Parts: sequence; C-alpha cells; structure tokens
Amino acid sequence: MLISSAETADLLLSHDNILLISHKSPDGDTLGSAFALFHGLCDNNRQVRFACHHEIPQKFTFLTASKPFEVTPDFTPDFIVAVDVAAAQLIGSSLEQYVDKIDLCIDHHPTNEQFAAKTFLEPKASATCEVIYDLLAQMNIEVTPLIADCMYTGIVTDTGCFKYSNTTSKTHKTAAKLFELGANYESINRIMFDTKSKKRLAIEQRILDTLEYFGNGKIAVITITTQMLEEEDVDDGELDGISAIPRTVEGVEVGITLREKKSGYYKVSVRTTSLHDASKICAKFGGGGHKRAAGCVIEKDLETVKTMIVQAVTL
Amino acid sequence: MLISSAETADLLLSHDNILLISHKSPDGDTLGSAFALFHGLCDNNRQVRFACHHEIPQKFTFLTASKPFEVTPDFTPDFIVAVDVAAAQLIGSSLEQYVDKIDLCIDHHPTNEQFAAKTFLEPKASATCEVIYDLLAQMNIEVTPLIADCMYTGIVTDTGCFKYSNTTSKTHKTAAKLFELGANYESINRIMFDTKSKKRLAIEQRILDTLEYFGNGKIAVITITTQMLEEEDVDDGELDGISAIPRTVEGVEVGITLREKKSGYYKVSVRTTSLHDASKICAKFGGGGHKRAAGCVIEKDLETVKTMIVQAVTL
Repeated sequence: MLISSAETADLLLSHDNILLISHKSPDGDTLGSAFALFHGLCDNNRQVRFACHHEIPQKFTFLTASKPFEVTPDFTPDFIVAVDVAAAQLIGSSLEQYVDKIDLCIDHHPTNEQFAAKTFLEPKASATCEVIYDLLAQMNIEVTPLIADCMYTGIVTDTGCFKYSNTTSKTHKTAAKLFELGANYESINRIMFDTKSKKRLAIEQRILDTLEYFGNGKIAVITITTQMLEEEDVDDGELDGISAIPRTVEGVEVGITLREKKSGYYKVSVRTTSLHDASKICAKFGGGGHKRAAGCVIEKDLETVKTMIVQAVTL
Repeated sequence: MLISSAETADLLLSHDNILLISHKSPDGDTLGSAFALFHGLCDNNRQVRFACHHEIPQKFTFLTASKPFEVTPDFTPDFIVAVDVAAAQLIGSSLEQYVDKIDLCIDHHPTNEQFAAKTFLEPKASATCEVIYDLLAQMNIEVTPLIADCMYTGIVTDTGCFKYSNTTSKTHKTAAKLFELGANYESINRIMFDTKSKKRLAIEQRILDTLEYFGNGKIAVITITTQMLEEEDVDDGELDGISAIPRTVEGVEVGITLREKKSGYYKVSVRTTSLHDASKICAKFGGGGHKRAAGCVIEKDLETVKTMIVQAVTL
C-alpha cells in the first residue's frame, strides 16, 4: 500500500524501537537515508538499530558517527523500515528473516515492487535522501550538521554530484538548504569523487592500456581479463564505473567493455550515445538492458568476441 | 571605482553599442558571462560585439548560438565591458588597444585589480555567471533557455559541478532557477565533465605510467616530459587539471607533478592535503603559491629534481 508523507511521518514517530535496513552492496543513498533517520530518531529518544547484509564500505563510515549512539544496540524492534530498497531480495540473504516483516519502505526507485506493508515512494526524487529531507521536516526533527552530511552524501552519490539527468530544481533547492544546515560538502565531495585507491588507479591503467578504437574511432573497446585482476590483486568492487569510460572518449558513439569471467566466457557491457541502441546490439547475443546501457554474454575467445560485438554495432 | 548591482544594470541599459571582452585562454565562466550578457542585450535591441584574445574552444562554441546574432558585427562601441577579468593583462596582447578603455568590469575574483573605470565585484560569488544572473534580473532581461545554458556553464565549470569549496547555498539556489528556466544541464555536464579527447586519454595514460610513490605512499609523483608531448602530439591545452591527479590517490598527502620544459628545467607543481603546506615546500626552491597548491622551478636532471622535491616534503 502506498502512503503519503504525512502518514509516513506519523508512523515513524509512533514507534519507539525501530530497525532500519539498507539494501545489500550499500551505496551512499541507502546509507545516507538510513543514518539521517537513525540520528534524527535517536535525537528524539527512539531506540534505533541499523542492519545491512554487507559491511559499510570504509568511505561511508563517517555517516554512522557511532558515538554517542551505538549502531546495533540489542532490542526487539516494533517497527522495521527499509530505505532505498526497490525489491525484497535486495535486502540480502543474511537479513532474510525480515523480508516478510518490513512495515515501511521509503524509496525513490520507480521500479519499487511495494514488497513492504506500506510504501512511501517519490519516483521523481533524485535520491531517497531527498525524500528523507522532506520527511524530517514533516516530523519536526532538527537537522544537525551530521544529519545534513548524511542526506548530502545520498544526493551527491545518486546524482554524480548534480551531473546526471535525475537531478532536478528541487535537488538543488534541497542542497542549498543542506549547505545552510552545515553539510561538510567539500570534504564529502573529496571522499566521494576525488579519491581513488592505489589499486583502482593501477587496474584502471592496465585496463586503459587495452583500449582499441574501431569504426573510424566511433567504437571504443576495453578488455578486463581475470589475469589482470589477479596480478593487481583487485576484486569486482574496484571496477565500479569502469564500463562508463570508453564512451566518454570524444567522438566515441559506442563504448564496449569486455570482462573475462573465470569460466572462460565474456561479459559484454555496451554504452551508447543517442545515435545507437545498446539494448538492440546486446539482443543479438541474447542480452538486454536500456537504450544507452545494456549487456550480454558471449562464450568465445577474446578476439572472436571483439569481432562479433564490433560487427554487431556496425551492421 | 566599485559600483553596485543597480548602478551596473543602469550603465549596461543606457548604452546601445556594447563590446564584451572575455579573458585570454577563455574558460566556461568568462565565456558564459559574456554570452549570457550578449544574448540578453541583443534580445533587448542593443548592438553587441564579442572579443577575446584566443579563439573560443570547440566545446564552448554552443554558447555563441551565432544565429540570429553575429558574434562580431562591425560597429564602434560606446561602452566596453570586461567579464570575469581580474587584471588588465589578462585581456591579452591582441586586444591591447582596449586595456585603458574598459568602462566596466564585472567579476568575482577577490584579487580583481580594479583596472576598469568602474568595477562590479562580488567576491563571494562562485562564478561571474552567478553575478550575471542577478544582474539580468535587475535589468529585467528575460532569461531564455540559451541564456540559462550560458550561466549554468559558467557556474559548473568554476565549481567543478558544485564540488569545490567556492560553491555556496546561493550557487545551488541559482542552479535551481536555471533548471526552471530550461538550462540543458545534462548535455552541458556531459560535454564539460564526461568527455575526454583521444589525445588527452593517451597522454594521461603515458603520464600515469610514470606514477611513483615515496614516503610510504604519502607522496605521489608524476612526470611529463617534452618527448611524451611530442610523441603524442599534444600541447599544454590538453594537460588541464593533470597536476591534480597524484593527490587524488587514497593515502597521498602530497601530489607532485614534474613538467619538463624545453630549455631543460622542470616546472614543479605541488598539491597537498591539510597536513602539508605546499607554499612552504616550494619556497625552498624560490617558488610560491597557496597552502594547498604551489609551484616552483628546479634546473636539474629528472632524478635529481625528484630526489630534491621529495626530500623537501619529508624534511
């Protein structure tokens, strides 16, 4: 059942022992949303516990500011809230016992499956944190600088620092208010956008060394082999956003990333400009996705995969 | 003489033949400011001409939208305005004849030398385009989507898309209004932040291949040789922002860029976190700058330069 902002605020305020759940592989928005609520509710004398299938990545731990509140106090929750969670399975297997017991889901994904008893959904919001900002106002909860940090983090990570098409006039208005409330935007932006691990930099170099152009420079292909990942001692977590790189090259209309998987096949990721339909290209190999970003799997050797996918673009 | 926003608006509206000047090596803010005014004044039946010592870089030509207005019509200006120009010499030698004749300068640089007859300075503004936005409102000039594009471009290029410390609550409020006025933010952001030339990517790869760590990974050094630039056929214009890269590596406190100059010396650029003072490091070699970014020149061979500058950091 979809509910309003006012009903959501009432529900949250009428419970004393609240469990907040973020989605697995947590990002800035699910964590920012959870901890904005966590701190706001703690400040208003609720008992709150946080749970997530995966550990909080190092760069987001500042959101927990674990003192003076403990993130996982021991109590039995009387209200379970999932934030930024579009589907039940995104909660993750270790929290399976809660899947059927989510009382409330607060989200901005248009694809939200309404798996919770009640759902407050704002599909036009750039980030769930933008929704949380309005909710806290509705609940009359004071936004401290720490809470402002949480919401700012969610908004900038989901919008690529106001760069992506999901950014709206309201996103900027919310950011303006978070600045006035003391968000440490400079430090947050440095952590989120201007910091690369040594391993990431090294693997990115290796991968960019494989860059090849086809079709008069309109197609760019990069290759990631399992050997590279082993030699640089990195896992998939360090490859976040890599497949966006080939298409950012000037003049490139189709950016292709070939990722060798251990069992010998290649995961192909295709990104396009408005001139090509990535989902149609990938459909030729039984894959799919969106117009600008799609994927497929090809079980051939590297050179054959490259030839096949480049031909699929040009034909 | 410093003048107010109201006086500036009156001055602009009381002239019919206006020459707008951008600073040399034009960036998004000086061009965005000039063309926001250009289009706004043309729409209000003024004759306007644009001048700049250097050509407009390809990625900014959309700001001119040269039809229906010609950028350089032939008329004798009765009012000369410099935008985003902090000092007279930044106008460039080819426009030298105007240096003593600038009637008005509109700027946001705190270092503005007040070389113009009258100066409207807003040192707290993130970009001159933020100042122009207020001026157009004061002048009752309608902000068309094209004019919104011009101002949005200046703001995002000067703030790193709202990432840098010069961004304020007002910057976000202005962005919110520009969204409502039809700024093509998605396409502008793609051009400004998500597009790299093939040459830039290639030279960046070459340069990153030289990355070395010192001091337990707290110092990162990259080297740019004249040979690399010749082999990749790139000039200094393609190196914009390169010296920021070493410091973005996780754990790095001092990022150093060594740039070989033709006559055999090295231009050293130092970027630091709050733990080190870049200007003190560079002062040891007769250079200077700011706490977080400074530079100096060392006339030694590469390995000696490297040793000297790394020692200067650690001692």
